[in-house]
Amino acid sequence: MSRGATDTPVRAGIAGATGYAGQELVRLLARHPHLTLTLATASQASSTPRKLPALARLWDGEVVPLDLDALSRQADVVFLALPEASSADIAPRLLEAGVKVVDLSGAFRLRDEALRAQWYPATGTMPQGVAYGLTEFEADAIRPARLLSNPGCYPTASLLALLPLVRAGVLVKEADIIIDAKSGISGAGKAPTDRTHFCENHGSVAAYGVFGHRHTPEMEQALGQRVTFVPHLVPLDRGILSSIYARLVPGTTAEQVAEAFAAAYASAPFVRLTGAALPEIKHVAHTNFCDLGWKVDEAHGRVFIASAIDNLVKGAAGQAIQNCNLMFGFDERAGLL
Amino acid sequence: MSRGATDTPVRAGIAGATGYAGQELVRLLARHPHLTLTLATASQASSTPRKLPALARLWDGEVVPLDLDALSRQADVVFLALPEASSADIAPRLLEAGVKVVDLSGAFRLRDEALRAQWYPATGTMPQGVAYGLTEFEADAIRPARLLSNPGCYPTASLLALLPLVRAGVLVKEADIIIDAKSGISGAGKAPTDRTHFCENHGSVAAYGVFGHRHTPEMEQALGQRVTFVPHLVPLDRGILSSIYARLVPGTTAEQVAEAFAAAYASAPFVRLTGAALPEIKHVAHTNFCDLGWKVDEAHGRVFIASAIDNLVKGAAGQAIQNCNLMFGFDERAGLL
Amino acid sequence: MSRGATDTPVRAGIAGATGYAGQELVRLLARHPHLTLTLATASQASSTPRKLPALARLWDGEVVPLDLDALSRQADVVFLALPEASSADIAPRLLEAGVKVVDLSGAFRLRDEALRAQWYPATGTMPQGVAYGLTEFEADAIRPARLLSNPGCYPTASLLALLPLVRAGVLVKEADIIIDAKSGISGAGKAPTDRTHFCENHGSVAAYGVFGHRHTPEMEQALGQRVTFVPHLVPLDRGILSSIYARLVPGTTAEQVAEAFAAAYASAPFVRLTGAALPEIKHVAHTNFCDLGWKVDEAHGRVFIASAIDNLVKGAAGQAIQNCNLMFGFDERAGLL
Amino acid sequence: MSRGATDTPVRAGIAGATGYAGQELVRLLARHPHLTLTLATASQASSTPRKLPALARLWDGEVVPLDLDALSRQADVVFLALPEASSADIAPRLLEAGVKVVDLSGAFRLRDEALRAQWYPATGTMPQGVAYGLTEFEADAIRPARLLSNPGCYPTASLLALLPLVRAGVLVKEADIIIDAKSGISGAGKAPTDRTHFCENHGSVAAYGVFGHRHTPEMEQALGQRVTFVPHLVPLDRGILSSIYARLVPGTTAEQVAEAFAAAYASAPFVRLTGAALPEIKHVAHTNFCDLGWKVDEAHGRVFIASAIDNLVKGAAGQAIQNCNLMFGFDERAGLL
Repeated sequence: MSRGATDTPVRAGIAGATGYAGQELVRLLARHPHLTLTLATASQASSTPRKLPALARLWDGEVVPLDLDALSRQADVVFLALPEASSADIAPRLLEAGVKVVDLSGAFRLRDEALRAQWYPATGTMPQGVAYGLTEFEADAIRPARLLSNPGCYPTASLLALLPLVRAGVLVKEADIIIDAKSGISGAGKAPTDRTHFCENHGSVAAYGVFGHRHTPEMEQALGQRVTFVPHLVPLDRGILSSIYARLVPGTTAEQVAEAFAAAYASAPFVRLTGAALPEIKHVAHTNFCDLGWKVDEAHGRVFIASAIDNLVKGAAGQAIQNCNLMFGFDERAGLL
Repeated sequence: MSRGATDTPVRAGIAGATGYAGQELVRLLARHPHLTLTLATASQASSTPRKLPALARLWDGEVVPLDLDALSRQADVVFLALPEASSADIAPRLLEAGVKVVDLSGAFRLRDEALRAQWYPATGTMPQGVAYGLTEFEADAIRPARLLSNPGCYPTASLLALLPLVRAGVLVKEADIIIDAKSGISGAGKAPTDRTHFCENHGSVAAYGVFGHRHTPEMEQALGQRVTFVPHLVPLDRGILSSIYARLVPGTTAEQVAEAFAAAYASAPFVRLTGAALPEIKHVAHTNFCDLGWKVDEAHGRVFIASAIDNLVKGAAGQAIQNCNLMFGFDERAGLL
Repeated sequence: MSRGATDTPVRAGIAGATGYAGQELVRLLARHPHLTLTLATASQASSTPRKLPALARLWDGEVVPLDLDALSRQADVVFLALPEASSADIAPRLLEAGVKVVDLSGAFRLRDEALRAQWYPATGTMPQGVAYGLTEFEADAIRPARLLSNPGCYPTASLLALLPLVRAGVLVKEADIIIDAKSGISGAGKAPTDRTHFCENHGSVAAYGVFGHRHTPEMEQALGQRVTFVPHLVPLDRGILSSIYARLVPGTTAEQVAEAFAAAYASAPFVRLTGAALPEIKHVAHTNFCDLGWKVDEAHGRVFIASAIDNLVKGAAGQAIQNCNLMFGFDERAGLL
Repeated sequence: MSRGATDTPVRAGIAGATGYAGQELVRLLARHPHLTLTLATASQASSTPRKLPALARLWDGEVVPLDLDALSRQADVVFLALPEASSADIAPRLLEAGVKVVDLSGAFRLRDEALRAQWYPATGTMPQGVAYGLTEFEADAIRPARLLSNPGCYPTASLLALLPLVRAGVLVKEADIIIDAKSGISGAGKAPTDRTHFCENHGSVAAYGVFGHRHTPEMEQALGQRVTFVPHLVPLDRGILSSIYARLVPGTTAEQVAEAFAAAYASAPFVRLTGAALPEIKHVAHTNFCDLGWKVDEAHGRVFIASAIDNLVKGAAGQAIQNCNLMFGFDERAGLL
């Protein structure tokens, strides 16, 4: 049963509204037909209230200091765009206050406690009943969830490319999957660092986090298969292109691969299959789409998949709202087209 | 025996001086201590004479229409920055006239006639005695050569990364090597096309030529091993970063990998080993360097290598001059530092 | 009296839907609450039908060859994103067929016949009753119009910055106004040329059209004052920043300038006054906003104004829809926030 | 009498070698035929020694903590690429120790004490005998100088464009000159700030420092005329384009303007006159050239001049070396072509 425009709007809060994902949440919520942004806070209680000039006229509110009580009182659902330690601290308290939580950090993404302790050490115990918000594959778990963990940006791009083939059983289970990802600089966060300086990135590309990025265990958890993952920074502001190399079970045809994708996404409003016309970051920037293209080398049993998303939308704020739409019984697309 | 500054300068000509690689040749030759640019022609006999304003004061000559006789008379060596069919036509005639040739096209890169006919169909029969100009590995063949075939930009970046390990015998021969390359747009040529339009590339990344790029057989020829190669265009003008994924023979240590690189490049002036500090395109742009960094996952027998070059310098004009330096007995570095 | 969501949607057609402004029209119309895109044609009758992959799911139609009859039958209003000669040819015929026309070319912008013949020579006679669509200043003429001429991108940015001060009488009439405009490359059109090649613009800025750009008479017509206008291309895809230097009538205070802006735009939903916090292209990209900031040097009687728009939205497709909204009695903001 | 390659090399030191201008000094000195880089220090005594990986093989030294004694002992000339307060502190002490100083900060640019106190408050008293290093106009003062003040990047671009016309007496003295400058982000320095973050500049342009930039008095000092100067940041890493609007004395012809430029730069190796073909930043990036183009509107007595330099070379390190060449009797071009 779906809610409509005539129902009382759901009150949404944001904690961490000044970062890149946070501002994208504000932008999207400002246009959402069923969610009303009632409170946007910074990521710290000590911050100074400020406006978001780029969003003036879309949302003319003020981002206030982080205030858990106010969020509890003024919101039915709170989006947390915070460092994982803050999320781990705040989410349970909001839940206790009866507020639903959509968490954009990595605090609640890993189910294996050992891996979680290794990659997200400051996040305490995993709460019960967390739904992993890869919308296209987890809708049944997402709808009733009260605490939703939004996937990482790289896992979103990669898992949407790989899960249809893994589930169709056409990938060789023992072979590594190689994921070479290219991300815009907003993926490195809003804090000014040597790494995010304009001049260090203009005219350049570099790999980072080789064999040691914490999105790797997140992908392996969903795939049940080893992944070699190397992210790169490319000189653009938003978007990810994941280039994926995998081995096909002998005898797999190009048609079977195409069918696996078509079946997986027959009713997915935000996955666009481009087939042999490979996706481009530009086509998905500022949208909630994931574009998937691929090419099969039948002779050698190889498949190449390219997956493009906007890291701040489908890789963060957009998917968060897509999940929230399911959690409140709205049309999955509400506020996202 | 090396030539020095007091010898008569060698006269150099360029055919195809208005393209990106051609202009880079002009720029480099203008500063070369032992080579004098005596004639620069366009790629066609029908072109209009023109200056190169960006290079004024460095070289104030005029690029004249293509003229084989003039090149033969006025040059001891001619650099061909032409489409492969033109190179295949012109190179033998220059050789007959007693002129040495450094060819930057793909006309003479593949030794296997069947592959050559497939990938470079309009290039006739392979001449005798072509040297493949991957300088760091082919110096002995390059020094006496009269027809030198300069490697492709992607093969240069990839082979410098892989040959030390292949020759050290630490890579699993049966496993695919995966090469995910990111190239600046100058790699797509100077002709204005939809693909080279500013707005199609700004803020975007896309793969192209999947499983079908003609640099693949060139790499496989040098490696003796299958390669899965996917090039991508990234929004910058010059430079390539090749991200390479390969499997190590069981028991191979990180130290052995490091030693293989150190041994291979102990006396190579243009290869810089950055080790765990991965290379960045920016650091090699406008230089003839190839920067190589890598990371070994001993537990799983994997190595990741990142290789960065400027596609127009080490991947084209610079390496051509480096080769020419060897062909005339100059210091390999002459005009390139 | 304003129309609402329950009325029959107005049928909109586009001629020239594959260019940058045309695609932006498709994107915006696809989301418009009261306008339905019924037909999108290319700019020529001989073109091949094609999809717009970047807009898949937003609009899955096909861009068909230019067909005047079809446009006349299937649309209540047609947006012309065509070369001016085509617009001049087609607009009168659509009007005859009872269809309203919003023209994005320069065909109908200049009222002075001599100037029009000089700058837009292939556009025949000026029709009667053309409204100049600078929405914020011409609403009364726009509402009843059947043929609307959408302003040029540079005039839009400049006139919104200058008209409040001209009308308030605070600018010295005899002094030149100097407009130094910086435009993204989409302003140079979608055709691949040397000028739009990625590598010619990456890392570069250049002026063009000095003292000879046809947007100059358009600005002078609206201002009644001489303008020195120099456009520049900057390495980004969309957006214009106009930096404007003007002389104030002696005695004019900073407060008077601020008041002139505040009064002019008190009820303008798409003009945001940023005051001393100068506007940035980034803040208006992909929006229909014009951001205006300024600084007054009272001692020397100078004002500097910076005006930022997205050249494809407020400078083209967005303003066209804003005007169309007025022409059909919709809320000015419909489909644009 | 000019020194040559056989003389003992002059020993050069750098203080502040890790910033953008400092690294450019290292790069240029590493190739200089008569200057040898003997010591490169950071800008603070407390810094940690570090290599410059991008410059490996060109210069493999270590940047050590700032050490005045070591600089005094090991260098005949020291380039100061420091904050102005440090320069003001250190320069006199190096001079006392018998070392020549080329200062790249603003500490010694303004001769008027009141203006100097206003714009560079922490720089103490102006020393005697400072030469202002606008090489093309101050060679006679530069040759004997022991303390050279290198011009600001914006003044370099603007003064080279304007001084020929000012000295030829063709500009209206009472009229403002308007200088609209576009600078790459390296002009904002190497420190990571909100302003230098990649994402704040990609796809954007913004003005800053309106009516309040300290390069304004430097330009007015050299021109003897009021200047309205507004700098802008454009999304590229290095380079400045200054667009200049000035009024011509009635009756001035385009030919007179061209002659003024030709006469001023008849023997200037680093100024290239492009005439009506306007300069582009790309053509001067990584060079010491200043490209000047212009257009005259005789009817209205206006001239537009565009001036392009690389802010880190001709606008900083390159001009510093050009000046140093004069100070030591070398060919002005040594190490710069």
